[in-house]
This record gives sequence, structure tokens and C-alpha cells, in this order.
Amino acid sequence: MSNPFFKNHGPILVSDIYKLINIEIGNVKKDVELNDIKDLNSSNNSDITFFHSNKYAEFAKNTKASFCITTESLKKVLPTLCIPIVVENVLVSVSKITSMFYPDAINDDFDDSAININETNFKNKVNYGKNVLIGKNVSIGANCKIGHNTIIEKNVSVGDDCSIGSNTIIRNSLISNNVKILDNCVVGKHGFGFFPNKNKNLRYPHIGIVIIEENCEIGCGSTIDRGSMSNTVIGKNTYLDNQIHIAHNVKIGKNSIIAGQVGIAGSSIIGSNVRIGGQAGISGHISVGNNVEIGGGSGVIKNIPDNTKVMGYPAKNIREFLRDNK
Amino acid sequence: MSNPFFKNHGPILVSDIYKLINIEIGNVKKDVELNDIKDLNSSNNSDITFFHSNKYAEFAKNTKASFCITTESLKKVLPTLCIPIVVENVLVSVSKITSMFYPDAINDDFDDSAININETNFKNKVNYGKNVLIGKNVSIGANCKIGHNTIIEKNVSVGDDCSIGSNTIIRNSLISNNVKILDNCVVGKHGFGFFPNKNKNLRYPHIGIVIIEENCEIGCGSTIDRGSMSNTVIGKNTYLDNQIHIAHNVKIGKNSIIAGQVGIAGSSIIGSNVRIGGQAGISGHISVGNNVEIGGGSGVIKNIPDNTKVMGYPAKNIREFLRDNK
Amino acid sequence: MSNPFFKNHGPILVSDIYKLINIEIGNVKKDVELNDIKDLNSSNNSDITFFHSNKYAEFAKNTKASFCITTESLKKVLPTLCIPIVVENVLVSVSKITSMFYPDAINDDFDDSAININETNFKNKVNYGKNVLIGKNVSIGANCKIGHNTIIEKNVSVGDDCSIGSNTIIRNSLISNNVKILDNCVVGKHGFGFFPNKNKNLRYPHIGIVIIEENCEIGCGSTIDRGSMSNTVIGKNTYLDNQIHIAHNVKIGKNSIIAGQVGIAGSSIIGSNVRIGGQAGISGHISVGNNVEIGGGSGVIKNIPDNTKVMGYPAKNIREFLRDNK
Repeated sequence: MSNPFFKNHGPILVSDIYKLINIEIGNVKKDVELNDIKDLNSSNNSDITFFHSNKYAEFAKNTKASFCITTESLKKVLPTLCIPIVVENVLVSVSKITSMFYPDAINDDFDDSAININETNFKNKVNYGKNVLIGKNVSIGANCKIGHNTIIEKNVSVGDDCSIGSNTIIRNSLISNNVKILDNCVVGKHGFGFFPNKNKNLRYPHIGIVIIEENCEIGCGSTIDRGSMSNTVIGKNTYLDNQIHIAHNVKIGKNSIIAGQVGIAGSSIIGSNVRIGGQAGISGHISVGNNVEIGGGSGVIKNIPDNTKVMGYPAKNIREFLRDNK
Repeated sequence: MSNPFFKNHGPILVSDIYKLINIEIGNVKKDVELNDIKDLNSSNNSDITFFHSNKYAEFAKNTKASFCITTESLKKVLPTLCIPIVVENVLVSVSKITSMFYPDAINDDFDDSAININETNFKNKVNYGKNVLIGKNVSIGANCKIGHNTIIEKNVSVGDDCSIGSNTIIRNSLISNNVKILDNCVVGKHGFGFFPNKNKNLRYPHIGIVIIEENCEIGCGSTIDRGSMSNTVIGKNTYLDNQIHIAHNVKIGKNSIIAGQVGIAGSSIIGSNVRIGGQAGISGHISVGNNVEIGGGSGVIKNIPDNTKVMGYPAKNIREFLRDNK
Repeated sequence: MSNPFFKNHGPILVSDIYKLINIEIGNVKKDVELNDIKDLNSSNNSDITFFHSNKYAEFAKNTKASFCITTESLKKVLPTLCIPIVVENVLVSVSKITSMFYPDAINDDFDDSAININETNFKNKVNYGKNVLIGKNVSIGANCKIGHNTIIEKNVSVGDDCSIGSNTIIRNSLISNNVKILDNCVVGKHGFGFFPNKNKNLRYPHIGIVIIEENCEIGCGSTIDRGSMSNTVIGKNTYLDNQIHIAHNVKIGKNSIIAGQVGIAGSSIIGSNVRIGGQAGISGHISVGNNVEIGGGSGVIKNIPDNTKVMGYPAKNIREFLRDNK
């Protein structure tokens, strides 16, 4: 995953990792340094990886990582050069280790580095309103407008010819040319991702970002969360109406049209040329094909193939829906 | 339609209109000036009109307009004094021409004319919070309150005894006496109206406004879009709860009560004394009668007659709904 | 009910109460002073109470209040020391009298007492953004963050280690330690409670508050209304996603997880360890048990017992839902 924004605080000593997750290091060499935590496939021998489900066995067999967080029953799949670290809950340990490499990706406290745009170099370049704040690591293209009270927090790139409304907050986002984000939006905050835990839940880091491709429009009062391990993407020329919620890791294709108050839960993938009616909801980890029409108020709880019209809760073929509801 | 707010940039030369929509002017007189674009019925001989569906044939036969955007198959209906301009997509051409007459009605970029209320004459008249901004062409009645960070953008009239909350944005709206608009609302922005187009959608102008009649209340986080060719209207003493979305051209009658998170899609008409439960959705171009009760969570996809109670998705008579779901 | 925030403007002369609700005082002693309005059970002989439904007859028989707003048919139940005041609509009269004791609890106009945090003692104690405003009667614990443009209006207590986002508005709330409230929220405003009335509805006072227990998280763009006669409570370690609406008097238990765009209507009670999927709606005055799972998009219109999984609209046992929708 491309990750332009979250600083990797590695390398980290392997002994510090064992200590963090309360595992005895035994006779493992303590002073080995690890550069990053990556998935099984993209790790190399200076990385740590994780393996929590048998469906990734093929990747596990061939991983190049030196260390792997895994379980007692899965560890035998790993190659001999990869040292297994056996834990009870792989994902919780991965969350803790990722937080060690990327400590800035856990909390989304307000950006206290943000200063008034008057005190930045953007003051001569951008058409801006009163009380506009700009964080660190922000770039803004030519011919942009930023409305009153809007906060461009840290780690945001805005293309040319963009118009950001008033009272909007953006962080950790790549925004292409000619994008409009209307008033009262929140873009790029962490998603609703954590491990439930009696008395005190454990938040996991969100090292993904939000990518909004060119010519998109985002309606008033919408929220678009950034990804956890991948990115949240709004494809070229896709229009979102007001009060829409796009959860972490969601990917939407090009030329799609999404009406008011729609919600798309985490990690779902929506195709191109898709039309979604008002108040429809898409469950998490769902795949919606290209050229799909989803009627207003629908609840989509399974994958929808290309070129299909669906409606209902749960959503079914629209002819079936209309026949059943005559 | 009354249109107090959008400046008509006419008259416009007929030759400029032909050029805008890429039509050969042929032997039409180039220097004729047109004052406005209006519907078939209200045009006079200094206007251009449009005719895109046979259901308006009676109006078309009698239009007084000098020019009419229409199609090859419809043009024969027009009177001889009205010159047809034949195009492939009537509404796209109308959108372009309307944008030429009313260029301010397409984009809703932030109002960069807005200044701090301290610098206006309202400073001695209104009870206002910190960082309140006021745009051009704004009037505010007696005994009004405007909360912190609220932006009354251009073209807003507020009556007497109104209370506007904090972090709220209003433009292009007529607000009557004794109206409350709570925090974090956006009122009067353009609706979700555009012609879908590969790679770059084409927004059409919204020359309508929002009218909120007296004694209304609008809950926190609500959005009310202004009309495109007509107005969006909230009738006297109608109360909206939090997080409600009212789309463009919607009209709601008097004494209606609409609970949280309801959405009403474009151009629907809701009667008086209507009660709508939380999270219900009303499709676009629907008519809901007077004294109607719509249960929470309902999805209304067809017209509802007066004095009816409905519930369900799709909404049906409530007795039927309860019987089917025992 | 504990009520730390709304100032009781009593004692009030009994003659002023008769006058307020347009009842002839007759030979009742005019100069008796009443301290408060309370329910039948907790009143003492310096209070006025109310009795509007036969289901409270046992309490009515034993009330210690000196006066009671009631109806012609119910008044005979009262003890002889309690003077009945017979009205047509008990709740409307109660609303008027409560408003007389607690005039600050009716309107939620912006807090014009709020001043910039720079001008308060919090400036050396809190990590805060630009343009943060603080009202009267606010306390903030150690190690707290408050984002840009956020308004802590009057009557708010914030615990230690809390993080409040930007553009958020809070009033009349008790917030425990280690709570996160993200951006663009509105917490503690009055609920959607009023008596419908031709031409001009009558708002009743909301003398309840919002209580958010420790370790909770409230997502962006959410609204949590304070209670009318009781409190709105979010239990310890409960997490709310974005764009959620919690109505007045709702109580949610501990360790519950509520996904995006859920709405919970007034006075419903949700247990602990409850999971509610995105866009689900819970009707008012509903009781949802502990360890309940409610599927996304569900509409809950009746009580749900402990340890149940439900889905659908109306919500039913999830096995039944899946069987009916194969």
C-alpha cells in the first residue's frame, strides 16, 4: 500500500516487539532490527508479518519475512527461515505492533499544528474564507477555494481547481483536480475499527488514507473515513449527495452516483457507473459490480453482480421486489 | 416562480445562444435579444422556452415564446411564430442556457463576500456569537439570535424573533418570523442535480430558493437544499428533528412533524398535519396528502392519499403492515 | 433525578401558578409558596405534582405534594391533603409550570455567555485549538484536548484524559474520564419534545442532561439530545460510530457498539454488550436487553429480550429473517 503520510518509526528491535506483546523471547537473537510490519506477500527479510487464517496458507508458505505473528496451529505452515511468534489473538498483537511502527495512526485528536492560513504561503495562492486553518504537510494546487472555518489538518494534498466548502475538516487525504467537497464534511478520520474489550476497547491504527479522484463531488455533512490497512477511494467523477457515510477501506469506482443518507460499511467495493438511491445501506466486505442500480432504502447484504438492478431489504432483483410488493 | 436572489444576466443575443449549444444558426436573425428562459406557459415573445415531452403539448401549442429548445419529433407542435431549436438532449441545452442567464446559480463555492457581523449594521440589532459572518443582500428582523461561527451567506432574509444556532450555514433563503434553525445545519445550497456524463458530470443551475415559514424549527445537523426551477418550502409551524435531509424542490405543508434522520428526495410534495417517523424515506416526485402518518423506517415509493396511516418498505396501509408482520 | 445544571427559579406563589394555566383559584390560599414541581412519589408538602394516568394511582394515593395537576376523573384518587387542580390537558399544564420553575430549560438558543478559552483559567491546563469557546459553569479535567472551533457551552463537566474534536458543540452534559467526542457533534441540546398545536407548537422544557460514562467514543457528526424529565445516558466503554442520533431520555448500557447512521428514538433503553449494525433504527419507549445483536438496517419496533439476535424491518429473530429471505 502506498503510504505517503504516516511516518514509520522503525527500525524496532525484535526484543522490544516481544516485550510489547508479553511473549518470552527465549533464545531468539534480541538485537535484530525490523523495519516494518507488512502482509505475508509483501514482506522481506527485514520485516515482521502476520498469519491468522488458513486461507492465506499459500502466501504463508512463501513469505520472506523473518518473523511472523501466528497461532500454535498455523505456525507449522511457515518456512523454516521465518520465526513464528505464537500469540492468542493474532490481530490484537498485530494492532499493537503496527501502533509501535506507526504511533500517529491510532488517535485522531485535533491537529494542534494547524495555523491560520494567513500565516502560510497559501495566503497568496488560495481564495479562502475567514478562520481557515492549515496543518503540516499540506499542499494545495492552483485556483482553489477554501471556505470559512474549514480545517485542512496535516497530511493533505489538494489538486488544482478544487472547491472546499465551509466548516469542513480534512486530514490524511489525497484530493485530485476539480474536486468539490461541500460544507460540514469530515474526511480522512480513522474508521470505526477497534478490538472490543471489556471496560476499555483497543483501537487499532489506521495507516490508510482517503483518495478522492478528479471531478468528484462530496455533499454537505458527509463523512469519509480513511482506511485501516488499505485506502478508502472515491473514483473519478463520482458524486455523493448530502449526509453520506463512507467507512474505512471502501472503494468506489468511476462515474457513480450516490444519493442522500446512504451508508457504505467497511471494506466494501463498489463498481463504476453504479447508482445508489437515498438511504440505502451496503454491509461491510460486500462487492457491488459495475453498472448496478440499487433502489432507495435498500439494504445490500450480499454481493451484487455487474449490470443488475436491485431493491429491497435484503436487496434482491428489482423485478422480484416489485412482484413481491404489488 | 418568484426569484428574488439570482441576478438575470440577460438580455442575451440569440446568436450567442446558438453558439453556446453548438447549433448552426442558419438564416435566423442573429441580433435578436432574449430576456429570459421560462417554461412554455409563462414565456412571452422576448423569451426562450423548452419543450421536451409530449405531455406538455397543450402548453407548447400556445406558447408565446419566440424560440423553443426541442427535438425533431416534437417541433411540429409549436406555433409558427415560435422558432424551434432542435437539439439531441433538451434538458442539457436548457441547463447550459439557464446557466448563461443565471451564472451565479451553478456553483455553491463559499461566499467570499461574507464579513464579520461586527463590521455590519447588524452589530447593534442582533444578539450574536463569536465569529459570525454575514454576506451580501442579507436582512435580519428584530429580536434575533445568531450563534457562534454561523455564516449567513448572501441572499438571506431572516424575519423577527428568529434563533439561529451555532456552526450553521444559510444562503438563498427566506426565513419567516419565529423560526429556529439549530446547530450544524446547511440551508439553501444547491441540490443533487446534474446531468451524468462520462468523466465529468454537468451541473445544472439551481435558481430556486428555500422558504421557511413562520414558527418552524429545524433540528441539528439537517440539510435543506434550495430548488432548481421551483422553491423548496417548509410550511408554517412544521418541526424537523435532527439529521434530516430535505432535497431540492420539496414542499412540506403546515403543522407537520418529521422525526430524526428522515430523508425526502427531490420534488416530492408533503401535505399539512403530516407525521413522519424516524429514518423514513420518501422517494422523489411523490405526493403525500394531508393528515398522513408515516411510520418510522418506512420507504414511501408511491403517492399517499389524505388521512392515511402507512408503514413499511415499501410503505403500505398500517393495518396491512401489522397483519403481514404478526 | 439529579439535576446539577438547571436553576430552579422557585419558590413560586400558588396564585401565580393558577394564573399561568388560566384556572380560577377560588378559595385556595393565594400566598402559599411552592418550591418545585416533582413526580407523585418524590414530592413533599412544599411541592406541586401531577397525575395524568390511572397507572400511577398507587403513587397518587400516597403523594405528599400539596397540589396536584390532574383531571376531573382522576382527582378523587388523591389524598385529602393534596389539593387537585383540574385541567383539560395535564401534560401541557405541567409543561407550562415546569417552564416557570426552570425557564432556562425550554430554549436552546446559543450560549452568549461563552468566551474564548484564552480568557479563562483553562488556558494553562487544556491543549486547545483556535477559536475554542467556553461557557459558564464548565469544568475540565487533567490532560484534555479540545479541537478548533469547538464550543463547550454552559453546564458541562469534562473528566480527565478526554479528547473533544473540532467544530463540536456540547452543553448540559457530564462527561467522564477518557471519553472521545469526535468532530461536528452536537451533545446536550433539547430533544424533539413539544406539544403539537395548530399554528404554534408548545415546546416543553428539557431539564435532563447527557451523561457519557468513561472510555466512550462518539463518532463524527453525531447528535445526542439531553433528557426531558430524566437523563440521556451512554454507558461505560460504549462506542458510537459516525452520524448517529440518540434522542432524549435514551439510556445505553456498557460495552455496546453502535455502527454508523443508527438512530435511537426517545426514552428507549438499550442494554450492555449490545451490537447494533449500521442504519438500524430503534423506536421510542423500547427496551433492548443485554447481549443483543441487531442487524444493520433493522427497524426495532418492540422489546428485544436478552441474548437475542434480530434483523429485519420489523426486526425478528435472525434465523427467521434469513429463512424468510432465502
